[in-house]
Amino acid sequence: MSVLVETRPQAVPPHGLPLDEEVWLNDQIMARATALISVSDRGLNLADGVFETLLVQDGRPLWLGDHLARLRQGAQRLRLPLPWCDDAIGRGLAALLSRAEVGHRCVARITLTRGPAATRGLWHPCEPVRPTLLMGLSPWSANPVQHVVLARQTCRNERSPLSGIKSLAYGDQLLARQEALDRGATDALLCDTRGRLACATVGNVFLHIDGSWYTPWLNSGVLPGLARRRLIARLQARDTALPSARLVDADSAFICNSLGCAPIASIDQRELQPPPRWDHIAGIYHED
Amino acid sequence: MSVLVETRPQAVPPHGLPLDEEVWLNDQIMARATALISVSDRGLNLADGVFETLLVQDGRPLWLGDHLARLRQGAQRLRLPLPWCDDAIGRGLAALLSRAEVGHRCVARITLTRGPAATRGLWHPCEPVRPTLLMGLSPWSANPVQHVVLARQTCRNERSPLSGIKSLAYGDQLLARQEALDRGATDALLCDTRGRLACATVGNVFLHIDGSWYTPWLNSGVLPGLARRRLIARLQARDTALPSARLVDADSAFICNSLGCAPIASIDQRELQPPPRWDHIAGIYHED
Repeated sequence: MSVLVETRPQAVPPHGLPLDEEVWLNDQIMARATALISVSDRGLNLADGVFETLLVQDGRPLWLGDHLARLRQGAQRLRLPLPWCDDAIGRGLAALLSRAEVGHRCVARITLTRGPAATRGLWHPCEPVRPTLLMGLSPWSANPVQHVVLARQTCRNERSPLSGIKSLAYGDQLLARQEALDRGATDALLCDTRGRLACATVGNVFLHIDGSWYTPWLNSGVLPGLARRRLIARLQARDTALPSARLVDADSAFICNSLGCAPIASIDQRELQPPPRWDHIAGIYHED
Repeated sequence: MSVLVETRPQAVPPHGLPLDEEVWLNDQIMARATALISVSDRGLNLADGVFETLLVQDGRPLWLGDHLARLRQGAQRLRLPLPWCDDAIGRGLAALLSRAEVGHRCVARITLTRGPAATRGLWHPCEPVRPTLLMGLSPWSANPVQHVVLARQTCRNERSPLSGIKSLAYGDQLLARQEALDRGATDALLCDTRGRLACATVGNVFLHIDGSWYTPWLNSGVLPGLARRRLIARLQARDTALPSARLVDADSAFICNSLGCAPIASIDQRELQPPPRWDHIAGIYHED
């Protein structure tokens, strides 16, 4: 059962709904348990879509404009129509947030797919498109300190335009995370196809070497992270090619994404120092 | 509304349902229009799943055992449980086919995902898994003669274990197909990250050079196609590294997958000869 509601922010009810109780799906707010996607959806069958994950603080999505801009860029790269303006998406998200028990922090995910296919197959440029736009909330949890290994089984394909957008295809990241857990670590770092450091499974990575901060350049198939961009400015970090051999030169390192940042305590079992001026780094999440 | 039906083969009704009218979803046959996937399904949100596409001839799925073996191998690579035995899947598919107007040829797709996630995020090894297994039918159409270009924008990542399985992530193939259509072609050939020929967007490729057949080796990130394997044997073809520069040496070429094969009439606007002994090539679809 879906319930069409006015998608304007409302006063938070004294007892809001559990965070994951409802979702916003193509202009309707409805119970997650009954909000269902067509078996013909191209997002499901071909990973034909993009998404964003946002930090919500005190009911307010952080960096919303930047997230929607990146969603739109990703959609453009896939030639995926996004027939909602930023304002409409923002209002829908605000309506969803207004009904839930959001607490101090929670996570919002916005997913866009090409919607149900009329016919089987890869690509029919003349086929009418009815995109699926989905928004949901989930609990936020702090990233613990990370112990990482360099993934051996898979890598980031910097030669694919998909690496620069937040496509639905997270299989390589899943494999890398599984490998990390198998090897007793908490996360993995991925290289690009030429052996240069790219990123962690769900975040960008920064290395502290000889008193300066470095992060892999976008040419290594790195997602242009919103936290990454802010931290390059804040730390005067250099984004550059970083052969994986440079990892041994790092005395500190951290992983960051739009939901938070976490120090790396060890890389391939070599212990690192805590990143200097951590409060300064984590301060980006208090900035618009 | 879902309708639970006995999933044993039944006599084809005199007037069967339209092919795409029903699907089989986790042991139930139901109308496609009402068969819906959870918004939390990891297949949708992370492309966490695999699939197979089968040719059905006179109501009988071709190479069913091989397809199910490959589905199971793909699931294992993703550590994705598949709690249905081959026999149960085969019975479900037969039941679905028995109710539809299947004609001489149609297409069956089997999709397996890790199912709805209990929590957000990449990977929770301790989380209970309730996989989604979905089967549907669609019309078959003959592959026309292909005019192909070598994709410039993207490539196959032979360093990812996903390249060897039929993962749900088809973004690179979508981009390559879009590029082909933009350039006035019907399909694209993809190279691996080292510039060696890999495959077409939805099929393997064979080249006829100096009187012998060649096909790219699996080391180029090629899906181990079921038609490919049969054609290597039938044509005594060599599977080997094929730098893209070798394309100009081919006098004939074709694309094949489990649904059929199609001659390539031109590569990057250079015209080719029709493949010799085409009936012999297409004969694999008459073999179990």
